[in-house]
Amino acid sequence: MADHTISRRRLLGTAGATGLALGAAGGAAGYAAASSGSSGGSDGSRAPLTSLGSDEVMFHGKHQPGITTPVQSCGHLVAFDLAPGTGRKEAAALLRRWSEVARRLMAGEPVGGEDRDTDVARDAGPSSLTVTFGFGHGFFGRTGLEKQRPAALDPLPEFSSDRLDKARSNGDLWVQIGANDALVAFHALRAVQRETGAAARLRWQMNGFNRAPGATARPMTTRNLMGQVDGTNNPKPSDDDFNRRIFVPDKPADADPAWMAGGSYAVVRRIRMLLDDWEKLSTKAQEDVIGRRKADGAPLTGGTETTEMDLEKTTEGGDLVVPLNAHARISRPDQNGGAAMLRRPFSYHDGFTAKGEPDAGLLFICWQADPLRGFVPVQRKLDRGDALSAFVRHEASGVFAVPGGAGPGEYVGQALLEG
Amino acid sequence: MADHTISRRRLLGTAGATGLALGAAGGAAGYAAASSGSSGGSDGSRAPLTSLGSDEVMFHGKHQPGITTPVQSCGHLVAFDLAPGTGRKEAAALLRRWSEVARRLMAGEPVGGEDRDTDVARDAGPSSLTVTFGFGHGFFGRTGLEKQRPAALDPLPEFSSDRLDKARSNGDLWVQIGANDALVAFHALRAVQRETGAAARLRWQMNGFNRAPGATARPMTTRNLMGQVDGTNNPKPSDDDFNRRIFVPDKPADADPAWMAGGSYAVVRRIRMLLDDWEKLSTKAQEDVIGRRKADGAPLTGGTETTEMDLEKTTEGGDLVVPLNAHARISRPDQNGGAAMLRRPFSYHDGFTAKGEPDAGLLFICWQADPLRGFVPVQRKLDRGDALSAFVRHEASGVFAVPGGAGPGEYVGQALLEG
Repeated sequence: MADHTISRRRLLGTAGATGLALGAAGGAAGYAAASSGSSGGSDGSRAPLTSLGSDEVMFHGKHQPGITTPVQSCGHLVAFDLAPGTGRKEAAALLRRWSEVARRLMAGEPVGGEDRDTDVARDAGPSSLTVTFGFGHGFFGRTGLEKQRPAALDPLPEFSSDRLDKARSNGDLWVQIGANDALVAFHALRAVQRETGAAARLRWQMNGFNRAPGATARPMTTRNLMGQVDGTNNPKPSDDDFNRRIFVPDKPADADPAWMAGGSYAVVRRIRMLLDDWEKLSTKAQEDVIGRRKADGAPLTGGTETTEMDLEKTTEGGDLVVPLNAHARISRPDQNGGAAMLRRPFSYHDGFTAKGEPDAGLLFICWQADPLRGFVPVQRKLDRGDALSAFVRHEASGVFAVPGGAGPGEYVGQALLEG
Repeated sequence: MADHTISRRRLLGTAGATGLALGAAGGAAGYAAASSGSSGGSDGSRAPLTSLGSDEVMFHGKHQPGITTPVQSCGHLVAFDLAPGTGRKEAAALLRRWSEVARRLMAGEPVGGEDRDTDVARDAGPSSLTVTFGFGHGFFGRTGLEKQRPAALDPLPEFSSDRLDKARSNGDLWVQIGANDALVAFHALRAVQRETGAAARLRWQMNGFNRAPGATARPMTTRNLMGQVDGTNNPKPSDDDFNRRIFVPDKPADADPAWMAGGSYAVVRRIRMLLDDWEKLSTKAQEDVIGRRKADGAPLTGGTETTEMDLEKTTEGGDLVVPLNAHARISRPDQNGGAAMLRRPFSYHDGFTAKGEPDAGLLFICWQADPLRGFVPVQRKLDRGDALSAFVRHEASGVFAVPGGAGPGEYVGQALLEG
């Protein structure tokens, strides 16, 4: 966890990375504290608000929340297009309203008075809620800010495995919501929508999930719907070059406009998994596709999840242990000029396609200071020779410029909109 | 929690209704215990498997799990139709396979050997997983068991607020999956589907959610997506007549076949909420629609959530405090001949409709010994004069006969299929 995301639990000095019970005494402000004064459950008992509910991520900070914050169990991604008549001034007012509602939501406070709040999150703590805002390519033209558009928002190259649905791709504005409670996340989504008013119209919306805190003893990495350990090679906040890889520097170089200081770029891909085909493979065949053991994510060449892969190791018969087209070999950072991105995905499951196949997979979200050094070169390599590509379809895509965080009294994007 | 659902936490003698940390020492068997022997997280740390993950509901028992089990945060409902050529014998084999996979899943064990398990639930505890099986009207004709079909499966009366999609209604077989971890629930869904083989074909599938354990201090009731406290008037396991209302008796009377001993009937309704309209109402107007305070679920006539509603109380101006068409007035058990059902719903959110309205609401599931005394009379009254009906649409419907639980060595439905 980077230093800008300070959870209430950390402030209170309790230990542990996830899910330790804190008890009602440490309950969050707002809704949950208010409910402590009301009557108990209908059987007269009162269950403790554990740290799952009371954990609070700070809205204000150098970077926006939801980037280095530990990934939550529930997520919503939503994109809007600016409405006709929404220019720079109206967009600034929208981002100011959104920032205020995000600050309140993340603190577990009701939003905008009794008649404006839907009460769906009432009784609950903020449950590690984060709300993150980004700008898409179209935003800048519609607000007369073309000159401020980062080059990183230029359309991505086309990849041969793309089957992109334009209606579910891109968008002028993007909002990422995450929380460890589904009702808290839904409440936040509706609140953000309500504040949108007439300034912008919904373009697309996707729901995702991850493992619940406390369900597993594996804290740093999760599994995806293929059953693979996911996120092993992520850069760590303790890495020397973590900030340089993920965030635009305080004094951006040529490629980035000054308003992106402390910001990051999000590449979002809806990647459907062809699970009916995947699950027909033996575990051994799946491991050859990935290059790692399914049980624990360790390289096929041995060790644990964090052991370096031995790319040269061969079997007694002379074959490479990690096949040339294994996903983990091709996507390794040191095979891609040191490129690195912070993968922070959600799984998704929207029932079934018209063909009866599961409409499920990964809402892939990766964060980087420069997509042309992060996502693009890796995806280009994967697109050419990744054994995994036979089992996935990229169905939607977007790139968003996510500005730095807002200080007290500021709103997200202020340096752009009032710059 | 009824006595047949014994969680691992209860066996270990720990206290509290939800979410207290148990620690890795109390970790569940199977997957999670196995992972304790492997390497830790990629930062070397190891988060505890809390009771959220380690809680285990027993598969075997007098009743099936998932009826009186506390509702979980993630749910899947799925219906199948028997395939041509699937008769009584093949259906019996299917229920035997399903029962075995449910038993293993609920114990947190891998299913059917390394190459059959998808590993999606690996590392996690059973997370209060329940898998519940039911039979729909069509099942009996296709298996030559018409004479065993309960009268309770006759089609429900049509209600004026119904806008039913037949493709998402009914079905020969119904499976309800619930867990406090989304990946555990998804893993179970895929495992059940895999065991289905060629015997049955997917008819419909829906995903739902509830509040996460630990997110709130309100243990007995949850909120729905309208922000209302939901489930206040549910019968309690401590009620004298609880079992009589919810379960078919050990020696069924005339209306029920013998094989339904210990069983229950589930009425399932996908109820879309017209949230854009609902959220335009003031809190006061919403409370008049429901007849209860939004903040804590107490009747408008005062007290707490569990206080009896004073149906005669008037304002100084002489108006009834709880309007005649208030939802809570009309649906009160003592206004319906003592009828009662156990409501155990999930919320759902499938994005947006073609009109841009939220496709969200309630996967209403209620349990009763007799739908003609439980769901039907209440819904008939609501259909005539419920103020809430302007804000909801019933979009799918099903009634399922859920047989009693299986003992060790038995499978669910055995008394029907081998009777």
